[in-house]
Amino acid sequence: MRDVPRPGREPGCSGATCGHQPGAPSIPAAKQGPALAAPVPSRGLPPQMVVWDEPSFQGRKREFTAACDSTAECGFSTVLQGRLLHSGFQGQQFVLERGEYPCWEAWSGSNAYHVPRMGSFRPIACADRRESRLALFEHENFLGRKGELRDDCPSLPALGWAGSAVGSFLVRSGAWVGSQYPGYRGFQYILESDSHAGRYPHVRHWGSHAQTGQIQSLRRVQH
Amino acid sequence: MRDVPRPGREPGCSGATCGHQPGAPSIPAAKQGPALAAPVPSRGLPPQMVVWDEPSFQGRKREFTAACDSTAECGFSTVLQGRLLHSGFQGQQFVLERGEYPCWEAWSGSNAYHVPRMGSFRPIACADRRESRLALFEHENFLGRKGELRDDCPSLPALGWAGSAVGSFLVRSGAWVGSQYPGYRGFQYILESDSHAGRYPHVRHWGSHAQTGQIQSLRRVQH
Repeated sequence: MRDVPRPGREPGCSGATCGHQPGAPSIPAAKQGPALAAPVPSRGLPPQMVVWDEPSFQGRKREFTAACDSTAECGFSTVLQGRLLHSGFQGQQFVLERGEYPCWEAWSGSNAYHVPRMGSFRPIACADRRESRLALFEHENFLGRKGELRDDCPSLPALGWAGSAVGSFLVRSGAWVGSQYPGYRGFQYILESDSHAGRYPHVRHWGSHAQTGQIQSLRRVQH
Repeated sequence: MRDVPRPGREPGCSGATCGHQPGAPSIPAAKQGPALAAPVPSRGLPPQMVVWDEPSFQGRKREFTAACDSTAECGFSTVLQGRLLHSGFQGQQFVLERGEYPCWEAWSGSNAYHVPRMGSFRPIACADRRESRLALFEHENFLGRKGELRDDCPSLPALGWAGSAVGSFLVRSGAWVGSQYPGYRGFQYILESDSHAGRYPHVRHWGSHAQTGQIQSLRRVQH
């Protein structure tokens, strides 16, 4: 990792710790998303994210400690030294925990469309490993069969949940990530107890990239 | 899903519930890996996997209930209605829980190379959600700093684990999946208490696709 001068602050970025991909890919093919390196962080630090604009922690470097609405002007792609992060104000969402992500594939997962660029990010404030509770419902508006979770669930069908879709969620405490496929694969959807009082009455409330209610795994976001 | 006649048994396949990709991709571009559909399974069923050789549960269908060393002759690509499965006798590994995987991307995750074909599979017998314990060590042969896990860990760095690599594992009970990146992303490595007495003294013991000791998340394999 080269030691490079930090660029000046661009408008729209006050510092941040979360990642989100815009809906319309427009990144040159050569840009595979950058990378992130983390010296061993101490626990108890506020959210922090370090970004390089090339893979394997090369190129220009930038640090963020708060939410950022748009990284577009900055020219940066990805991130992540920080703590619980969430990519998200529109388009695909990515929940990012502390660690190293040397290239775009490291944080993108098996998503349907690949955009090696993160547009915005913010911390996940309500994550609470010790006390995470969520209710899921067969139908929208909290109707139909109900399930309650307190632990990570890599397969809703294995627990007896009929079908591969969920109609609505009620997040009682903490923050959760719902995933399209078993084993936390596919599209991710952040579900937070402090967002609209934890109420997600319809699939459209999970995010603009949620085209269906398909959810087959759910896990807690942990500090 | 079309109802198609079941093909005859090919040599080498006695029925199976696990998935593994061979090291050398040789699949036509049009083959995106097949799909899987699961009617609501009852708990307590033995491992079972249903495979289609085209995405979205189309094409020829085949059912497996035991390990299969090689699906190559069968011409099938992917799977999964079954329970805890593990892809693995060589090459990339994929731990597959019960549910629907309509295409290759649904089970492949964000791996370094994409081979939309599964070569072999077997059940994960020792998985035990209620009692899963694992020890991780900084160096090989169980030396150096040690950590103990009883719960899923989406970020080893967040727990204070210095660096992004692990030297060796001792699986005390149950089965675990180690992943290259945080949030259970990247290459997966199955770690089982009933494999070599749960001892993984060196990175080469995690699987032939393990080129480095990079592990940043670990989770229990659950029934």
